[in-house]
Amino acid sequence: MINYSIILGNLGNTCDRFLSSGYKTQPSKAEMIRQAAAIPGVRGVELVGSWDVTPANVDEMGGLLAKHGLSCVSIIPDHFSQQRWGKGAFTSKDPAIRAQAYEETCAAAEMARALKCPLINLWPGQEGYDYVFQSDYILDRRRTIEAVTKAAKAYPDIKFSLEYKPKEPRTHSTWARAADTLLVARETGQPNVGVTIDTGHSLVAGENIAEAAVLLSDFGKRLFHLHFNDNYRGWDDDMIVGSVHFVEFLELLFWLREVGYDGWYSMDQYPYREDGQGALRNSVEFLQSLETMLDEGAMKELRGLIAEGDAVKSTAWFRAKVFGRR
Amino acid sequence: MINYSIILGNLGNTCDRFLSSGYKTQPSKAEMIRQAAAIPGVRGVELVGSWDVTPANVDEMGGLLAKHGLSCVSIIPDHFSQQRWGKGAFTSKDPAIRAQAYEETCAAAEMARALKCPLINLWPGQEGYDYVFQSDYILDRRRTIEAVTKAAKAYPDIKFSLEYKPKEPRTHSTWARAADTLLVARETGQPNVGVTIDTGHSLVAGENIAEAAVLLSDFGKRLFHLHFNDNYRGWDDDMIVGSVHFVEFLELLFWLREVGYDGWYSMDQYPYREDGQGALRNSVEFLQSLETMLDEGAMKELRGLIAEGDAVKSTAWFRAKVFGRR
Amino acid sequence: MINYSIILGNLGNTCDRFLSSGYKTQPSKAEMIRQAAAIPGVRGVELVGSWDVTPANVDEMGGLLAKHGLSCVSIIPDHFSQQRWGKGAFTSKDPAIRAQAYEETCAAAEMARALKCPLINLWPGQEGYDYVFQSDYILDRRRTIEAVTKAAKAYPDIKFSLEYKPKEPRTHSTWARAADTLLVARETGQPNVGVTIDTGHSLVAGENIAEAAVLLSDFGKRLFHLHFNDNYRGWDDDMIVGSVHFVEFLELLFWLREVGYDGWYSMDQYPYREDGQGALRNSVEFLQSLETMLDEGAMKELRGLIAEGDAVKSTAWFRAKVFGRR
Amino acid sequence: MINYSIILGNLGNTCDRFLSSGYKTQPSKAEMIRQAAAIPGVRGVELVGSWDVTPANVDEMGGLLAKHGLSCVSIIPDHFSQQRWGKGAFTSKDPAIRAQAYEETCAAAEMARALKCPLINLWPGQEGYDYVFQSDYILDRRRTIEAVTKAAKAYPDIKFSLEYKPKEPRTHSTWARAADTLLVARETGQPNVGVTIDTGHSLVAGENIAEAAVLLSDFGKRLFHLHFNDNYRGWDDDMIVGSVHFVEFLELLFWLREVGYDGWYSMDQYPYREDGQGALRNSVEFLQSLETMLDEGAMKELRGLIAEGDAVKSTAWFRAKVFGRR
Repeated sequence: MINYSIILGNLGNTCDRFLSSGYKTQPSKAEMIRQAAAIPGVRGVELVGSWDVTPANVDEMGGLLAKHGLSCVSIIPDHFSQQRWGKGAFTSKDPAIRAQAYEETCAAAEMARALKCPLINLWPGQEGYDYVFQSDYILDRRRTIEAVTKAAKAYPDIKFSLEYKPKEPRTHSTWARAADTLLVARETGQPNVGVTIDTGHSLVAGENIAEAAVLLSDFGKRLFHLHFNDNYRGWDDDMIVGSVHFVEFLELLFWLREVGYDGWYSMDQYPYREDGQGALRNSVEFLQSLETMLDEGAMKELRGLIAEGDAVKSTAWFRAKVFGRR
Repeated sequence: MINYSIILGNLGNTCDRFLSSGYKTQPSKAEMIRQAAAIPGVRGVELVGSWDVTPANVDEMGGLLAKHGLSCVSIIPDHFSQQRWGKGAFTSKDPAIRAQAYEETCAAAEMARALKCPLINLWPGQEGYDYVFQSDYILDRRRTIEAVTKAAKAYPDIKFSLEYKPKEPRTHSTWARAADTLLVARETGQPNVGVTIDTGHSLVAGENIAEAAVLLSDFGKRLFHLHFNDNYRGWDDDMIVGSVHFVEFLELLFWLREVGYDGWYSMDQYPYREDGQGALRNSVEFLQSLETMLDEGAMKELRGLIAEGDAVKSTAWFRAKVFGRR
Repeated sequence: MINYSIILGNLGNTCDRFLSSGYKTQPSKAEMIRQAAAIPGVRGVELVGSWDVTPANVDEMGGLLAKHGLSCVSIIPDHFSQQRWGKGAFTSKDPAIRAQAYEETCAAAEMARALKCPLINLWPGQEGYDYVFQSDYILDRRRTIEAVTKAAKAYPDIKFSLEYKPKEPRTHSTWARAADTLLVARETGQPNVGVTIDTGHSLVAGENIAEAAVLLSDFGKRLFHLHFNDNYRGWDDDMIVGSVHFVEFLELLFWLREVGYDGWYSMDQYPYREDGQGALRNSVEFLQSLETMLDEGAMKELRGLIAEGDAVKSTAWFRAKVFGRR
Repeated sequence: MINYSIILGNLGNTCDRFLSSGYKTQPSKAEMIRQAAAIPGVRGVELVGSWDVTPANVDEMGGLLAKHGLSCVSIIPDHFSQQRWGKGAFTSKDPAIRAQAYEETCAAAEMARALKCPLINLWPGQEGYDYVFQSDYILDRRRTIEAVTKAAKAYPDIKFSLEYKPKEPRTHSTWARAADTLLVARETGQPNVGVTIDTGHSLVAGENIAEAAVLLSDFGKRLFHLHFNDNYRGWDDDMIVGSVHFVEFLELLFWLREVGYDGWYSMDQYPYREDGQGALRNSVEFLQSLETMLDEGAMKELRGLIAEGDAVKSTAWFRAKVFGRR
């Protein structure tokens, strides 16, 4: 039984650097939660600090979620949407900002406890650099390790999942790829620190998503969370899942079963010009459709195909599955 | 009725710079032609100069093709596999080499006449440059225009189709993208000069293949020929069609119908480690499967979806087509 | 004598989709113009519609520019920063929006006349598509050609320069690459329609910038304008010129001389986290430094190196130029 | 004092999949060694199994090297140039091939001992996969770990350095990026296993090379070896160092000093159409020129610039260094 969720803000307005006021209008939180609950299969939401949830409204949000039967799957602390984080949060050259970044993390963990949310998804997007000779690569990585370790020790009942992304908003992120970030997670020495794969970030990193998922699982069960979206491999386009890639997602779902991943399958998109609910619903339905392809017979056949490694056979298998044997 | 063909050499041995003796063994020409004819749907082959066909064996090849009911769809003059072309053929800084490149083109045209083949596919792969300050961009382009114009005038009964590719074996090719090459074709002023899309080259160029096909068709019916293969968008991996991309090929086939393309659908792969015949058969079968999706009802629905431009609806349409409406 | 200019807004606040309120504070227009004029070598500015200039403030802007001895080099009509353009301007599926896009262009042309500005730089950023089956490639391109033709005829005293960009804010832009856009410019049949190269857009398109400049110049003197910035080839990072690429810019400046380009060298950056004036000044100084490398002796040597095409010699030449012969 | 070396085969003939007989002629080994020794600064060579060195000629090679005062810096076992390795060496699905891959490694280690060569550079290029559903990601990685561990234990006096590369000849390599490969090296538990950075591979992987070098050094001193070449970030073009990138190499050399790297700086190129010796000499001279920029004053200034992180200042610093302060 797959647990699908969405990031709540995906139902709201979206902007970019050219149209900063946004492509759409912003619905109320109550409306967004209602829309989320109405997507068949969706049983949880992720909340972003500042944007969706703050200490001031956390109880209200808890009430709204409960009313619609939704779990809070994760909280993403806001380390990116305020001017003070512009040159880094955990890695800011200013110790006061670094302290605030840690406090923001703790505040998110407190809200998580209040909402019975098991996981903090850390995406400190401003961590990194834009130019050569701008980052002290040793110090910056260590500072993120130090902050995460401290938070993980302070909140041992909460999972901290590090979301990597090769770039944007910085031209180079500190947590850029699966293996880099796994090294950071392991270095904390804390069992409650793992890694989030955002499928779009993984594609931009040049990774095969399924291989990244296996890597994180096989080196110590560190795959904690998943964000789903699609793109053209060059940028984090945050599109409807399955609108570009198909067989890669099938391979990912196959391997998630093989490694026993039991976390949430969370949608994370930026439907700039699309109806948000429709875009998210399509993504969930695509993944559900893929799951129907992966019955026990198919799982067994795929294991055999992988063992053999013959691309003529595996492409024929996929084609037959999709179009029927002829 | 779609006409499928293959490049004959795809059934032979394949090598790369690390394993120059090749991954497989080389079958005889007769055997390759027999294998080609045995792929359901395939009714033509393309022949590469030096590798497949020379003035010395052209009659023999014609006999073999006739025996197996195959047409010669195109001839690709060898402007790339000999040391003399290493620094350019039409754009060589040596006038003797430029003259030889033209002669090679004429020899191919003569063979085409002998085989009743309607088209010369020009892929002068060594044209271009590797380093900055290495090419005279004006002169090099003009030299290719001059040579093609001369050949097109000399053989007005033959179509000359220019195959573009952004890179490899040079880091930058002279005919790199669809529009660049269309400019060259138009500049010749000859109606029998057009452009070949190799789907993999188009992906590496960052193009949407369907859009490139429309561009070449809409600016004066210059889409003359098509090579099919698949890749991961970063390099000309020459893989089985449909092994990576799916919906993009559907869109391409849709638009080929819309613009009235009536040329061949030719497979062009490098099955380094795969059974060649199986790899090509899979590609043809994938394209045939896509064609079955494009019945009149689907064509009409797609025209409506494009007119509306709503990605939620079009992705839902695609999913329903593949998995059935639920 | 090179004419350097900047895009005025580069001195203002900058935002992205994660930090939509911006990384900095917004100075007044008077302050930005003062800063622009204070950059040694800068003698002109480009103004963006809505952001910098409107019919209501055009006289005031003219006065400010005159006061600081700056020319208005180009006006960029706002076809991107308002919600109404979100799904396209010239290519909107709504005829009312298309009409407004044309009116916006005319309004910019009127302002240009008022400011004695010779050029409208058209970057209709929302033109294009995000998903397959979303654009009618024939219709969309034709609609841009139609609108540009009409404007060029209505304002024959104004140059209309089409700025291409492969993507962003759409995943695929209608005017994506140099040659595609040259085809559009030529199709208008108007001599006052040309193409703008943004060096960063060209890099993202996988082009060699110098080659693109030569192409646009050699096929009918259609290179009308230049925007300078730098990036890592994967995205329009809009960085300080020379912070990533070096020898490519030298090659570009060399060829701009060879083809007799006599337009402006305009800086177009997004210094998100940097002092805007400092970032622009650095870019101009880098280009000025390169110009000092290109004295008559060097131009002659480079012509010789290109004629010879030996990368060992050209890389040695470059190294000797930079580090001194040893 | 920097120790420069070259890969001997770089002085020989080079081929690709289109011109498999090669672009040049093959000199004798004696001639190549003579040429290597004649490049100022070069004091060592790397030898490739099969191509350069075999148990049959190892003594002869040792004699030639000694005669010219060259050290054998590393041996690269041949795991890629024979048909038997075509579908993988350590990860072959055939246990006999896996055994042979291990034997080849041991044979290289024996030759290393005979030549007093301290390091085996493992680049098992055929390890990986081309298609989805072709690799058992768990098993394949484990098999490489197992083989390397066994070899490292058997030859504790030899360093084993794992060279990563994202792709080619496979579309996806098993050791693809710095951090992935560091995980493999650490997993062996052997102190004599580390990682080789090939600068071109790192660029293709989307890494900042300097950051990768710091990562490998900071997580346990695992940076064992360096291969230098340049490319356009999309493919392993194996070009002259400095022909594309400049400031990135300066940053790399800076950080190599900071982390105390004391291994060889080895050139690894494919000068398809260039004079091999000239291409290698240019690379060494470029790196030597960069070293002269990094005097103690510059090192100190750069540390300050990194601590401050202001791109306006660092780009100005670089420009002043190159062009002189004005």
